[in-house]
Amino acid sequence: MMQAGVEDAVRRSFQSQGAMLALGASMSAVDDGFCELELAFSEAVAQQHGYFHGGIIAAVGDSAGGYAANSKLMPERECLTAEYKINLLRPARGEALVARGRVIRAGRSLLVATVELCAREGASLAQCALMQMTLFASDARAPQHPSA
Amino acid sequence: MMQAGVEDAVRRSFQSQGAMLALGASMSAVDDGFCELELAFSEAVAQQHGYFHGGIIAAVGDSAGGYAANSKLMPERECLTAEYKINLLRPARGEALVARGRVIRAGRSLLVATVELCAREGASLAQCALMQMTLFASDARAPQHPSA
Amino acid sequence: MMQAGVEDAVRRSFQSQGAMLALGASMSAVDDGFCELELAFSEAVAQQHGYFHGGIIAAVGDSAGGYAANSKLMPERECLTAEYKINLLRPARGEALVARGRVIRAGRSLLVATVELCAREGASLAQCALMQMTLFASDARAPQHPSA
Amino acid sequence: MMQAGVEDAVRRSFQSQGAMLALGASMSAVDDGFCELELAFSEAVAQQHGYFHGGIIAAVGDSAGGYAANSKLMPERECLTAEYKINLLRPARGEALVARGRVIRAGRSLLVATVELCAREGASLAQCALMQMTLFASDARAPQHPSA
Repeated sequence: MMQAGVEDAVRRSFQSQGAMLALGASMSAVDDGFCELELAFSEAVAQQHGYFHGGIIAAVGDSAGGYAANSKLMPERECLTAEYKINLLRPARGEALVARGRVIRAGRSLLVATVELCAREGASLAQCALMQMTLFASDARAPQHPSA
Repeated sequence: MMQAGVEDAVRRSFQSQGAMLALGASMSAVDDGFCELELAFSEAVAQQHGYFHGGIIAAVGDSAGGYAANSKLMPERECLTAEYKINLLRPARGEALVARGRVIRAGRSLLVATVELCAREGASLAQCALMQMTLFASDARAPQHPSA
Repeated sequence: MMQAGVEDAVRRSFQSQGAMLALGASMSAVDDGFCELELAFSEAVAQQHGYFHGGIIAAVGDSAGGYAANSKLMPERECLTAEYKINLLRPARGEALVARGRVIRAGRSLLVATVELCAREGASLAQCALMQMTLFASDARAPQHPSA
Repeated sequence: MMQAGVEDAVRRSFQSQGAMLALGASMSAVDDGFCELELAFSEAVAQQHGYFHGGIIAAVGDSAGGYAANSKLMPERECLTAEYKINLLRPARGEALVARGRVIRAGRSLLVATVELCAREGASLAQCALMQMTLFASDARAPQHPSA
């Protein structure tokens, strides 16, 4: 269960992110240490063969892991991505891209999250990518780049 | 030095990539095992604080590493990204993002590349990210996903 | 369920690995796409503060992921590690180190696995590291380095 | 150029590391943001085919990157490895393993380093692995795990 006020802070922050909104991504679920984002397929997020573009997959995954981490930090603190690794597992073809970020370890300064990315076609989900990422927590009023 | 015909094949493939062109990225240099891409700053590639968006940085870096690898493979073969890791080093602010991909190891099936990403403001370059990636080589006429 | 002969081939290969045996690691479980290794604590695997050494953690994890992948390939084929990423989550202190490798995606040439590493003290397990790795499958009679 | 006292602190810390000494690794060079370690070949560091073992390569690389980072921090502060990624490029065969760690970015809390690993045979060096790693800086008197 999330503390009162945390979900509001997480959703408000996501709504202020131009890039995710411009793509059309929405936050389909958020819980303590968990965040699910969903992005409908369109030409704007496709590569030349009609699959979701690798850069889009990474960007949505980065955001899902980031908000999973933020659910452990907000509203007093927030995180920035220090680094991630992504394996592309299959071409991502379907109606929507679903990214599920989970916090594996929430330390005082660093958080570690994994993100599963799936392409959804009707009720069927096919995993297309997997990420493992490190996030840096800082004071929400004086955010600081992880390597600053 | 590149073999005759390779640069043409690399540039032609890049020009057919909708996503990089839509962003406005251009291939400023290509050589045997090397590729430099450049992307001018605009609102469309920015995050909320006016820096280059992390997802954009990764997408351009992925492409720079990919075409560095393709310069070792084309026209008979081509590569797909199996996986990469990216460290975000500094907020990326400037007129343009410059991505320099270099092949570190070109094996028969796998290639390894690194990509340095810098923000350019006039003549000054500040490194903003570093990538290390693995690419899978396949026959250009029957491309195959790295994990297929 | 594993095919007949696969478990034998996996265990025989593990028993021929000098390094894991020298450390004292044993294969506590193996199944289709899964492998669990266990290593008892000793001075020989410790760092200066009495925890399991980071290099040992990575080596056992690499092996657990590798044999999880081999369970999908042996006896006709076998894998070599192309690359991995490891996050160290907590100091690893306890009676034993337990590494659980799982295949996430088994392609024709590449396999992707994750490995959870825990320190065990009695019945209590504390996760100390997480790995995400890429393995290259080759013919068992003519093994070939992933980047060869 | 390194500040007075830094090299002493770095070398003293390395000399107190049981694991690297036990393997027989030595610090062949250290400078501001740079560290080179060398490890002679022996059965104790080999895998079954007579190459340097992958786990040993990663452990020596981790240490080289760590002391490159420590050269930016010691004696007041020191670092711990948060995570790394390693690509294995070639079988590592030779008289000695040489690891060269370089700091790419030294932030207040996080440092990023790369490590080139080569197998040396006489005067010839063949690169066998490449690492990209993130280190967490903490007070030397109260060291703290990066994810604590």
